[in-house]
Amino acid sequence: METTRADQERIAILNPDGYRIYQRRDGFCFGMDAVLLAHFCRVKEGERVLDLGTGTGIIPILLEYHTKGSHFTGLEIQEQVADMARRSVALNHLEEKVSIVTGDICRATEQFPKASFDVVTSNPPYMKRQNGLVNPGEARAISRHEVLCTLEDVISQAKQLLKPEGHFFMVHRPQRLGEIMTLCHQYGLRPHRLRMVHSFVEKEANMVLVEAVRGGNRQLLVERPLIIFEKPGQYTPEVAQMYYGSCD
Amino acid sequence: METTRADQERIAILNPDGYRIYQRRDGFCFGMDAVLLAHFCRVKEGERVLDLGTGTGIIPILLEYHTKGSHFTGLEIQEQVADMARRSVALNHLEEKVSIVTGDICRATEQFPKASFDVVTSNPPYMKRQNGLVNPGEARAISRHEVLCTLEDVISQAKQLLKPEGHFFMVHRPQRLGEIMTLCHQYGLRPHRLRMVHSFVEKEANMVLVEAVRGGNRQLLVERPLIIFEKPGQYTPEVAQMYYGSCD
Repeated sequence: METTRADQERIAILNPDGYRIYQRRDGFCFGMDAVLLAHFCRVKEGERVLDLGTGTGIIPILLEYHTKGSHFTGLEIQEQVADMARRSVALNHLEEKVSIVTGDICRATEQFPKASFDVVTSNPPYMKRQNGLVNPGEARAISRHEVLCTLEDVISQAKQLLKPEGHFFMVHRPQRLGEIMTLCHQYGLRPHRLRMVHSFVEKEANMVLVEAVRGGNRQLLVERPLIIFEKPGQYTPEVAQMYYGSCD
Repeated sequence: METTRADQERIAILNPDGYRIYQRRDGFCFGMDAVLLAHFCRVKEGERVLDLGTGTGIIPILLEYHTKGSHFTGLEIQEQVADMARRSVALNHLEEKVSIVTGDICRATEQFPKASFDVVTSNPPYMKRQNGLVNPGEARAISRHEVLCTLEDVISQAKQLLKPEGHFFMVHRPQRLGEIMTLCHQYGLRPHRLRMVHSFVEKEANMVLVEAVRGGNRQLLVERPLIIFEKPGQYTPEVAQMYYGSCD
């Protein structure tokens, strides 16, 4: 028996203004990390934004809502996932501002002109490839494990796609912070802002938000910690304000 | 008119067990950073510890009190400062456990055998040398600015002095975190624990505590933030517990 789209997908409401997004019931859906990244990003009026590995399209859709950027492109390698993201763009009537492009992060500089974006964002796969532990054909595995692209691919492509002084924003695991800093240095992106994300104030960080600038000479600022929960089940006011939907 | 030692120095009480330390009234005295570093360090029973740029000797003296390490050496380039640290060691009758050695961090591997310490600590100068802004002859300038040694000197010497799998602990400014991570990678120290220090939970970090291991393959843990003040003038319980003296 064939499953229909309605069996596989559901629509989540993103914010009080009624932005909506398709998610897959099998777990391919955006997480809190994407929401936090979208709120960490700074996009100025008229800027062009590229999201590497856009998945559901959550980041360009939220940035279109929150910022005055002129255009938002999401690059996604999985055709089925890209198709769902395109339908989310249409659902919100954002076709003129948001494009979803099917393609490979590792070859992004073949699809887009170099030095053509003011801002590049990414919520890339967090986990290193471990042979045998993941099924590389599964959509969720591709989004979570470095099956098709590595951290180095993301950073090296982001640098090439950014204009000089352009800004790169990424969410990742704190365990990888050493590599992130070293690779940014290696590829000429200068870490400019870091924010550690802790589920509770007395817990270790489980995400890190990074802003890096192509070239330039700014000092690194480690911002106040981002704390998710005030107590079990209750978001801090900061997170409650930004967070209107996720997987259930 | 010549000033006497009594004019220039005062004695601070370090803890309820009566450990005391000499400080200089002109501002050459230990700061909260040294106290936080001493509490961040983990020294196991029988381990040998070296503190690079020990200043007042606060770190070896506190570690002697808090840990079961077998011996603690403080290296200090300024003879007058080293002399004051030695008198603090004597004041607490710690001569058998704590040695203050006069010498240059940059040439530490000529004074101590390579790979001879289990733990190396440092609270190095934080600020890059800026010609003309500091008086390189002034004791406080030498302790605060990279007049006589750089971050790279500290990290490269620490790595050589540590046994394989030995641990390096440092406190520094978050603005330098990118360099710290890159230099650790370059010299074969693997960042293992980080803790951001914030004056208040809603303020940016103003210090970072770093533990790195010579060799090995551990993952980086970013610990819960260390918050200094609960409200203006009132330490958090964690800091109140560790903190018994500083410059006034």
